[in-house]
Amino acid sequence: MKHVKALALLATLALGLGATVMSSGSEGDNKNAPIFGVTAPAGYRDWKLISVAHEEGKLNDIRAILGNEIAVKAYREGKLPFPEGAIVARLAWQYVPSEENNRAFGHTQSFIAGPPTNVQFMVKNSQEFASTGGWGFVQFNDGKPAHMDAQVCFSCHVPVKNRDFVFTRYSP
Amino acid sequence: MKHVKALALLATLALGLGATVMSSGSEGDNKNAPIFGVTAPAGYRDWKLISVAHEEGKLNDIRAILGNEIAVKAYREGKLPFPEGAIVARLAWQYVPSEENNRAFGHTQSFIAGPPTNVQFMVKNSQEFASTGGWGFVQFNDGKPAHMDAQVCFSCHVPVKNRDFVFTRYSP
Repeated sequence: MKHVKALALLATLALGLGATVMSSGSEGDNKNAPIFGVTAPAGYRDWKLISVAHEEGKLNDIRAILGNEIAVKAYREGKLPFPEGAIVARLAWQYVPSEENNRAFGHTQSFIAGPPTNVQFMVKNSQEFASTGGWGFVQFNDGKPAHMDAQVCFSCHVPVKNRDFVFTRYSP
Repeated sequence: MKHVKALALLATLALGLGATVMSSGSEGDNKNAPIFGVTAPAGYRDWKLISVAHEEGKLNDIRAILGNEIAVKAYREGKLPFPEGAIVARLAWQYVPSEENNRAFGHTQSFIAGPPTNVQFMVKNSQEFASTGGWGFVQFNDGKPAHMDAQVCFSCHVPVKNRDFVFTRYSP
């Protein structure tokens, strides 16, 4: 879920999550290769909030991290590693100043979410994604799956191996 | 929900929302006066996400705006004014840099949610809160109701009267 230029699309998303595999791409059995045509898990925009963050620099976004029921339950119970089927979603929007808010506050201080940039998911399936810590990684731009390399995603997450490769902590 | 130093506590929160009125305070029938002993609506931490924001300056927080089912449905349908019973929650946390994330990104760019600061609610009840645009305003610090003046809250929200006094827009 970090600075990833490539993420694998996950057939797992299609399993009981309302997603639909349209085609399997051209990479055969290479689980880290992109698999195009997968849609995001149905209803993810309704998932519970895990936390929020802001990234400066090239990303320049403000983001919310949501989780499906399995993921949020594990967070709240402090359960590690995350159970099979856990999905963490990272929704990001452009980071934009709000003149309207600034006027209300009387100070230039307010930044809000602008247009959406992309949505990323981490999906726990230890068997399917054994080579990337048991997590599959996927990104959607404008609702369309992006061409990604899960190994690139995973390499950024290795430093938080002790939290099952998940950066975001739960915010009460 | 803006730069408010005082918010009224809402008996409305106790009506069918799982909250409990412990006492009614000493302000009698003055609806804008604080009413102590009200707890936050049950389950609000599970509500759906409306949007996110960051406030610099003295607030220096990062925040998530959640809504109950009535509020989120109205947002998604573009329904204004908000229906009776709509509640908008603003959860804020200290805005803190993440060295862990910065190392992963390779840049100093990441800010995350630290310890919680306070939680504010706007509750739509046109009759009960007729003098403040139909909205009651309430804040909780560490789960305890804060001593507030709803008129102060409301005065900040007047500039967005055309959006039924609600600043936050829905982020898709």
